Amino acid sequence: MFESAELGHKIDKATYDKEVPKLREALLEAQMDLSKLAKFPVIILVGGVDGAGRGETVNLLNEWMDPRFLETHGMGEPSDEELDRPMMWRFWRALPPKGKIGIFLGSWYTWPILNRVLGHAKTPELDQSLERARRLETMLVEEGALILKFWMHLSKEKQQKRLKMLEKDPKTRWRVTKRDWEHYELYDKFSAVNESVIRHTSTAEAPWTIVEGYDPNYRSLTVGKVILDAIRKRIDEAGQKITEVSAPPPLPSIDRLNVLKTLDLSQILSKKKYLTELEKYQGKLAILTRDPKFSDITVIALFEGNDAAGKGGAIRRVASALDARHYNIVPIAAPTEEERAQPYLWRFWRHIPRRGRLTIFDRSWYGRVLVERVEKYCSETDWMRAYSEINDFEAQMVRHRIVVVKFWLSISKDEQLKRFKEREKIGFKRFKITDEDWRNREKWDDYEAAVCDMVDRTSTELAPWTLVEANDKNFARIKILKTLCQQIEAEMKKK
Amino acid sequence: MFESAELGHKIDKATYDKEVPKLREALLEAQMDLSKLAKFPVIILVGGVDGAGRGETVNLLNEWMDPRFLETHGMGEPSDEELDRPMMWRFWRALPPKGKIGIFLGSWYTWPILNRVLGHAKTPELDQSLERARRLETMLVEEGALILKFWMHLSKEKQQKRLKMLEKDPKTRWRVTKRDWEHYELYDKFSAVNESVIRHTSTAEAPWTIVEGYDPNYRSLTVGKVILDAIRKRIDEAGQKITEVSAPPPLPSIDRLNVLKTLDLSQILSKKKYLTELEKYQGKLAILTRDPKFSDITVIALFEGNDAAGKGGAIRRVASALDARHYNIVPIAAPTEEERAQPYLWRFWRHIPRRGRLTIFDRSWYGRVLVERVEKYCSETDWMRAYSEINDFEAQMVRHRIVVVKFWLSISKDEQLKRFKEREKIGFKRFKITDEDWRNREKWDDYEAAVCDMVDRTSTELAPWTLVEANDKNFARIKILKTLCQQIEAEMKKK
Repeated sequence: MFESAELGHKIDKATYDKEVPKLREALLEAQMDLSKLAKFPVIILVGGVDGAGRGETVNLLNEWMDPRFLETHGMGEPSDEELDRPMMWRFWRALPPKGKIGIFLGSWYTWPILNRVLGHAKTPELDQSLERARRLETMLVEEGALILKFWMHLSKEKQQKRLKMLEKDPKTRWRVTKRDWEHYELYDKFSAVNESVIRHTSTAEAPWTIVEGYDPNYRSLTVGKVILDAIRKRIDEAGQKITEVSAPPPLPSIDRLNVLKTLDLSQILSKKKYLTELEKYQGKLAILTRDPKFSDITVIALFEGNDAAGKGGAIRRVASALDARHYNIVPIAAPTEEERAQPYLWRFWRHIPRRGRLTIFDRSWYGRVLVERVEKYCSETDWMRAYSEINDFEAQMVRHRIVVVKFWLSISKDEQLKRFKEREKIGFKRFKITDEDWRNREKWDDYEAAVCDMVDRTSTELAPWTLVEANDKNFARIKILKTLCQQIEAEMKKK
Repeated sequence: MFESAELGHKIDKATYDKEVPKLREALLEAQMDLSKLAKFPVIILVGGVDGAGRGETVNLLNEWMDPRFLETHGMGEPSDEELDRPMMWRFWRALPPKGKIGIFLGSWYTWPILNRVLGHAKTPELDQSLERARRLETMLVEEGALILKFWMHLSKEKQQKRLKMLEKDPKTRWRVTKRDWEHYELYDKFSAVNESVIRHTSTAEAPWTIVEGYDPNYRSLTVGKVILDAIRKRIDEAGQKITEVSAPPPLPSIDRLNVLKTLDLSQILSKKKYLTELEKYQGKLAILTRDPKFSDITVIALFEGNDAAGKGGAIRRVASALDARHYNIVPIAAPTEEERAQPYLWRFWRHIPRRGRLTIFDRSWYGRVLVERVEKYCSETDWMRAYSEINDFEAQMVRHRIVVVKFWLSISKDEQLKRFKEREKIGFKRFKITDEDWRNREKWDDYEAAVCDMVDRTSTELAPWTLVEANDKNFARIKILKTLCQQIEAEMKKK
């Protein structure tokens, strides 16, 4: 795999000096087109062995290119805010927006490789990490990103030579740390793991480019040219008609009662019973969330449901059991400009809370497969791939001890009509009813189909949906509080 | 000061039950108008003594109001990312955007009060903190925010009673911590400090409202009504013609040579000398920024200058001495939608780096007093007040061991013309020259006046301007590198 990168590639100074001005000019031109015309994000990962010039190359790219459209992120030790969230959070928060280039020195491969080489993780765990990385990259590419992955390679002999050379020069001595030499001792182990990682993650949409790192001229020109060609190619393609990635096969038609129709919406709870239970479960939730063990976990409760199904009221009943210092409510409205310049899930990642916190999403990432699907705000391909992207997203959270509790509040069509009419009458509730609500109601069946698909495809063992019979508000609220308590308690009992 | 809040205010249940629905309706209506029509941010600080129902009141507000336009922030212990930045960073990152309400449980007063009571700070330090808080609030109000500050008060006797009551009830027992009782023991000390804080910071634009916290009905209704009235009043005022706050007296006319005209732009550095010095100071910068002591400080280098003065080239010479993992370049372009919904300085606060990092601003917060002043993008009042706001901002940074290095790159009008023409000729530089550059050039004198005012008003001992004679690029780059090294070195020598 590394054969071509051990041939002793070299570019003489004269050639280099002749090539660089042309390359720089072309890169600047490409950057300008990227930011003004094509508007897709470019994600560049720079990995490789110590001493292979990763940092130098990135510095050079910064020198060559226009820093207004370029961001470099050294992903070193994570901060405590980062450690408090799933591993990928720190990358999500650093993703370049459309029209910009983001260079990552150290990537989502760095820690899996290190952990494997140092023996903190076994091969199956490494494979899982790689599978997750692959899926992430697929998603980013489908969101329009161009991903370039560079691996700076050195043969064992050349690595030793480079490290010694760097150490000898007082100006570069600081670059060589004790850890570099420790890693050098592990060269063969690293090599095996690196090869396996590159092999498993060199996909069609995001292949690795292995670059021999010994000769700075060769290395820099190569990386520069690969970046240029890739951006240029994508920009030119963007000019043509894009062949839409074909959607996965359509859902099988459902010839039985669907999950919503099987709900018994006639279930009710008397006012008296309700008040007793409300006190009981709010009290329980209050105690659970103040338990010292709660500080090791995170809770995300998301609420979806028919319009007027009572999400707001239910959320308030949950919230009033909580300490205002430890929860927050994220209402999902239209995305902002900064959010529109990022992959779909970005605006949800940014709201993932720290450990010991509870976040309530009033509507959520499921908008993609509900309103956006029904109202055709996105293409079929987009919402079809969203199911697995969402499952991946939630799996990452669950792995990080985030309890993901998902509620669908279901009311009948008649009940909705009744509530719409009531709301129009009551002063302070009339804000809650808009023309859009009436329009949505006309698409009741489309929404129902979308909800059934959503439940079928995203109710996982890790993060199951709880369907809430909500014709009776009392019944619904208690079911929600009870479910929330159960799921939090179950997670707190682990470990 | 607390007399009215020790009278035993009480609202009976019947009155409360009658009043609340009306209040809720009015609050919801006000929120809706706020988000749709008036669009200003509402900042609510909730402070007060332990047991006075701060958390309960905030929970209730969350229940009453529409959570889509309301954010609650419990400002507890700061995270390591927050500790790595000036104290106010965590508040800036949590500020509500226009049209929303942000409730802060724990505010910029919490720590100054605690530190004073517990003896970690003396009165002069407390006074300084309060002065800073006052200035911050003035700025926020001038940016359009409505600030409401609530102080929940209890007499000593009532505090004891409330704490005991809360402790007795199993459902509220968790609320009373050992710290609450410790604070109770310090009641008189707290009382004195609290009073002084409230007295010093009850300004016309952001007065404190002291609320007796013993009776929940009284407390909740009072807070709700004050919020309602204040928002309503501001919305109604917004409908009328706003009387612009009169600008401070105009700058005195400058009858001597200005700071720019005294620069000797003929200074040059030979190519040979340049290369030697470049190597020397880039090497020095490289070593300084890798020094272990560097991890205790932060560096912000900002570049302003005439168009075509060579900011980009200078920035690249600085950057190439640095490790890409530890610096980033923030190019300041037009603000995004999220940035426009916040006070002017918000978009700079969000880029303040952690300790051990260096951030280069390519243009900066000085845009307010340069391009925005000259092009009249903001009112005279806005840019006039910007001088002191910027000084405050930089003082906060410097106090946190952030070295703020400010460069103005100055070229002559003739030199600029020469460079514009050159740029139009060279392919990859032609992006750098736009119609706007030519238009700006026509306002040369206005810009010159703005620069001189800027230097006069913001070149402080803490964060002085370095004027760089930039007709000769070599000379300019070395002066910049040298200055940067000196200022970093000086800070690292402290402590």
